[in-house]
Amino acid sequence: MLVIETIEEMQAASRALRRSGKTIGLVPTMGALHDGHLSLVRASRATCDATVASIFVNPTQFGPNEDLGKYPRTFEADCAALERESVNLVFAPSVAEMYPEGACTWVEVEGVGGRLDGASRPGHLRGVATVVAKLFHIVGPTRAFFGQKDAAQLAVLRKMVRDLNFDLEIVGCPIVREADGLAMSSRNRFLSAEERQRALVIGRALRAGSALVEAGETSAAKLLAAMRAAMAGEAGVRVDYVAVVDPATLEVIGDVRSGGLLAIAAVVGTTRLIDNVLIDVVVPDATSVVRVPEENFFAAGR
Amino acid sequence: MLVIETIEEMQAASRALRRSGKTIGLVPTMGALHDGHLSLVRASRATCDATVASIFVNPTQFGPNEDLGKYPRTFEADCAALERESVNLVFAPSVAEMYPEGACTWVEVEGVGGRLDGASRPGHLRGVATVVAKLFHIVGPTRAFFGQKDAAQLAVLRKMVRDLNFDLEIVGCPIVREADGLAMSSRNRFLSAEERQRALVIGRALRAGSALVEAGETSAAKLLAAMRAAMAGEAGVRVDYVAVVDPATLEVIGDVRSGGLLAIAAVVGTTRLIDNVLIDVVVPDATSVVRVPEENFFAAGR
Repeated sequence: MLVIETIEEMQAASRALRRSGKTIGLVPTMGALHDGHLSLVRASRATCDATVASIFVNPTQFGPNEDLGKYPRTFEADCAALERESVNLVFAPSVAEMYPEGACTWVEVEGVGGRLDGASRPGHLRGVATVVAKLFHIVGPTRAFFGQKDAAQLAVLRKMVRDLNFDLEIVGCPIVREADGLAMSSRNRFLSAEERQRALVIGRALRAGSALVEAGETSAAKLLAAMRAAMAGEAGVRVDYVAVVDPATLEVIGDVRSGGLLAIAAVVGTTRLIDNVLIDVVVPDATSVVRVPEENFFAAGR
Repeated sequence: MLVIETIEEMQAASRALRRSGKTIGLVPTMGALHDGHLSLVRASRATCDATVASIFVNPTQFGPNEDLGKYPRTFEADCAALERESVNLVFAPSVAEMYPEGACTWVEVEGVGGRLDGASRPGHLRGVATVVAKLFHIVGPTRAFFGQKDAAQLAVLRKMVRDLNFDLEIVGCPIVREADGLAMSSRNRFLSAEERQRALVIGRALRAGSALVEAGETSAAKLLAAMRAAMAGEAGVRVDYVAVVDPATLEVIGDVRSGGLLAIAAVVGTTRLIDNVLIDVVVPDATSVVRVPEENFFAAGR
């Protein structure tokens, strides 16, 4: 496994791969890898000739009062894990390499980029879109793999790729959870044992919503009420948003008859966590066929 | 010469060219081709295996009160001229193909994107950067060729390519002029015979500035005064800007000892025209070496 730190070397390596007819899978990460990231690597390995993982804690997607400074950095363990997964190349640039002095070009996805986490964290999704556009130009992937947990990020990147005609495919991969149902996140390590217990309310609230959908409920108002009621039951957890939205546009929807996204963001102690369930529902006609996809269910607690 | 109208076909053609090891030159145009455009085609033909010219009148770079509706469209003559220049591929998409409903992603180059024409025409350079980013993703060029006449556009695109790490080279090509010194422009055809005569004041003003530079003057204030005085001599010509700036950042500079750009925009009748002279000056030490590059001089009037 080769570790590359400069843009020039990465572009040369990518050009050589493409010229030899190889497909390239890109797994962009901020390091502090967990099984969610590794599931993306496996999806890439299964469908691409070469897999490139990037490790870069992107400062432009953090707000001034957010946790950039304390974001976990575990570079050696990350490389060991990627090597075990037979990743071909790790791209790990410095901040100065990615943002030399005077850098001032932004990719802005209007609309979807200002919703959910884009509303709670101004500039966050602009920073994500910009750094991912850069990574796409540096790595030249055939496919790029992102976790469904960051649903707003995924929606923004899909929109960016479509609107700007990037010649690549965005692949969204199912959320990977701990045994107790907590969605895996590099930030979970910030939780104390007590906070960790409290954080499980997010999963319970989503499950309350998806259980209603399974029982045939399609009204977003009813789903929201159930999720909010579940969230209200836990002290020490500050709700950022509870939402039922279109997963592509992140716009609020009134019902989930044509599918939808149940999404929650909450701050537990000082740690902001997000989670969601994708409702892959179709109500084609009078006969209601309501289905929540298998991968959205939690391993535990059912 | 193949004419392609869809993004999908263009991307497939580009992928095939790159896989076969061919370099691709892109000449983005809005049609209504003149010898300036054709000089870009020749530069591409001289340095790239395959040359793609795009013809697309990009609505997002026109303001609401600008001349999008009356912009000249001469598609058949353009294709004939490109065929004579042995262009391999013409990419000529429709507006609906380039901007399907709901398109809302923008490439914004802060700073440089708001100066000169970016200041006079709000949103213009954002539209340019966005459509060119799209064309880069669609055509996948090794090199892309732009005229120095649109100096602000060139500065913004160079910045965009650097900041977003596009894996390609931007090549700026010298301004091509009519025999009387008027910079070639698709909009020159809007000028009446009388306006055409009046428009020559722009070239005279730039020549007044560059003549001072040749004589050893490096003070931007002196150059500006000379250019403004020349412009003031012509009735029916409304000055938009007269500027001495850094050609890369478009920031105002106090002297041209390290080079600079003399730039003028003016409205003649109802037609907005731009022109400029690149001052390739170095004053390395006590010995002043002041040089205006050959290609900036006009064919006539010297």
